[in-house]
Formats: sequence, C-alpha cells, structure tokens
Amino acid sequence: MKEIPRPSKRRLVLLKRLLSEYEEKTITSQKIESLTGWSAAVVRRDISLLNIHCGASNGYKVCELKASLDELMDSDSQEQKCCIVGLGRMGQALLDNTELQSSQFRIVAGFDSNVNRTEVLRSVFPLHPTTILESVIQSEKIEYAILSVEKEEAQPIATRLSSCGIKGIVNYTPCVLTVPHNVEVENVCLLTALETLCAQSSK
Amino acid sequence: MKEIPRPSKRRLVLLKRLLSEYEEKTITSQKIESLTGWSAAVVRRDISLLNIHCGASNGYKVCELKASLDELMDSDSQEQKCCIVGLGRMGQALLDNTELQSSQFRIVAGFDSNVNRTEVLRSVFPLHPTTILESVIQSEKIEYAILSVEKEEAQPIATRLSSCGIKGIVNYTPCVLTVPHNVEVENVCLLTALETLCAQSSK
Repeated sequence: MKEIPRPSKRRLVLLKRLLSEYEEKTITSQKIESLTGWSAAVVRRDISLLNIHCGASNGYKVCELKASLDELMDSDSQEQKCCIVGLGRMGQALLDNTELQSSQFRIVAGFDSNVNRTEVLRSVFPLHPTTILESVIQSEKIEYAILSVEKEEAQPIATRLSSCGIKGIVNYTPCVLTVPHNVEVENVCLLTALETLCAQSSK
Repeated sequence: MKEIPRPSKRRLVLLKRLLSEYEEKTITSQKIESLTGWSAAVVRRDISLLNIHCGASNGYKVCELKASLDELMDSDSQEQKCCIVGLGRMGQALLDNTELQSSQFRIVAGFDSNVNRTEVLRSVFPLHPTTILESVIQSEKIEYAILSVEKEEAQPIATRLSSCGIKGIVNYTPCVLTVPHNVEVENVCLLTALETLCAQSSK
C-alpha cells in the first residue's frame, strides 16, 4: 500500500466514522464535502490512496469504502494496548473515558510520578509509579501512550516511552516532543488547537 | 498573505512554541527536523509560506521567524474569548486548565444542559445552562468554542454555535461535525488520535 500522508489519514479516520452511521448504499465526494467541509477534490484524492477499485462516477460503494478503510485502520486486528502517563485532571478525565469502549484500543495501565495518586485513584486498570514505566510497557506489550504529564516531565517521559517500544504518543501537553522516526506523535493539546484555529480564521 | 494549508499551520504553531525556548540566533531546517521529526524539506516549504525575506542558506534568523509567526498567529491581538460547552469529566478537566494562562485565549463562559452541574461546579468564569448559549456568546463576543458534550448533543450544539458567530470549534467529541465553510473545526478526540497513529504505524 502507498504511504499515506498524515492529513489524509486524519480525514480517512473521520470518514470511516462518518460512514459507520451512513445508511445509503453509495456516497459521492460532493456528499462527503457537504458533510465534512473538505473539498470534493481533496476527498477524491484521499480515497484514491486506498485500495479501491470502484469508479467514482456514480459515487463510491459504501461497503467497499468501509472495507478498505477497515484494512487501513487495521480494525480487525486484536486489541491495541495503551497506557496513560500523568494522572492529573486531564489524565483522570481520560481514566473513565467511554469513547474507547467499542474500539480496538484498550487502556491497560496508568502511571504517575506521584505515588499517592496511583494509590488513591480508582480505575479498572492498574496504576503504577512512573519509575516502573519500562517494565510494565514491555511485559504488557503496550504500543500506544497517552501523555498528560506536567510540561517539565513531557520530553523526558517521551524519550523513555520511545526507548521501550512505544509506537505512538497522543500528546495532551503543549510541548513539542522530540522522538525517533519510528515513533509517531499526535498533538491534541487545547492551546495548539486554538492557535491553529486562530491562524486559520485570521486570514 | 497566501492561504496556508491546515497541516502547515499546525506545524507552524508548534514551531513558534519550539522557538520560544530556543536560545541560538539562527536555526536551520535540518535542526528543526532533528527536534520535531518533520523533514527539512517540509520545514522549508512551511516557512516559505510566511512573510520571510531572510535566506535559508545559513539558517533562518530566529527573531525574524518568530516575528513572522507572531504575525500569522495574531499573537499581539487582544484576547480571544472562548467558551466550553459540556461540563462532564473532560469539560471539568478543562475548567482549571492552566495551559491557556499565558496565551491570548481566555475562557469566559461554560455551558451544560444539566443545570445542576452549572450550579454546583466552581469556576473562575460563569457557568450557564445551554439554553442561553446564543445570547451569552453574542453579548460576550465569544469567538471560539471547546466542545466536550455527549455524542448525541455534538451536532445540534455545533449547528447552534455556527449560527451565532463562532469562528472555530475545538472538538473533543468523536463526532464528525457538519458546519458551514466559515467555521473551522480542530478534532482532538482521543479515539481519532489513536486511530490516526494506528493507521500510521501499521504501514
């Protein structure tokens, strides 16, 4: 499969979710434009990156599109294990996140440098001191980390996560993380999002 | 100024943050690559979209880069008012978010459809029932909304936000929002981020 650029992947992930609630048999790029705001040309280019053989003249067959998106997202695979590092307010809000329940992702461990927190907080998965991060990640075969530590801890923890086999980090901190090429980062911090919107709309 | 694509804007926002703690006088695209993982070619293309006249042969002058990024982000402007809609666990975690403190963004109102919540929760800004969303947004001249409502409420609220002058929405829900062209959305939901990482790294 061709290498798919990150912005296309972000849109394809959302397209998959959109289609999961779409009840027609076919969908056109114009229809997708009207639902998402992405231009029809961008939509067609994104879809052209998938293993799809149906023509687009009368719209895409929704079932083929879904199958191809499932393949891209590896949705049939076994569960993907995740951990949360940093159990402050944001980390705690993620502790009982119901959003992942019907997905292939499962949070199996939480970490905090404050041992009081890991002892007092309640969670369906075990909470550990950050000191044993590496051993838990390796023994549990955790692949993705959700980073919600304090600013000062962000880079040191990202470096440790990278060195023990984590494939991807969802970064809730405002820090720009320096990680090796084989580790992917998705930046979801509020400030970054607001600044991106602001730069957008001031044009 | 040229229209700057969203992925470039996201990187430029992070570049600005990176430079705010960078102490050398010049920086090369290769150095930025080593710090961020974006390829030097991508970095040079992004920077070429700014109003920058310095050559890149010996690196960019950090002060010129910063000035140009400040201009893009409109950082000198007066404060940008935001509101939070949806005060469940995620919304509450954002209530005392310290990340925005030194930025131009200020949260001035919170909304929830559960009046109990708006009465019981404590916050430095007023909390209102969602019924009066439009009047508060208009009287306070709020430009950005942080959406952290339940899934079922997401699209109806996004439609109401769009119709009362909101320029941009930071979307913490997993829903794909349909909004008019003049409203920008940044999707920061955990599931979307994990799926994007997973699609990335399974290639």
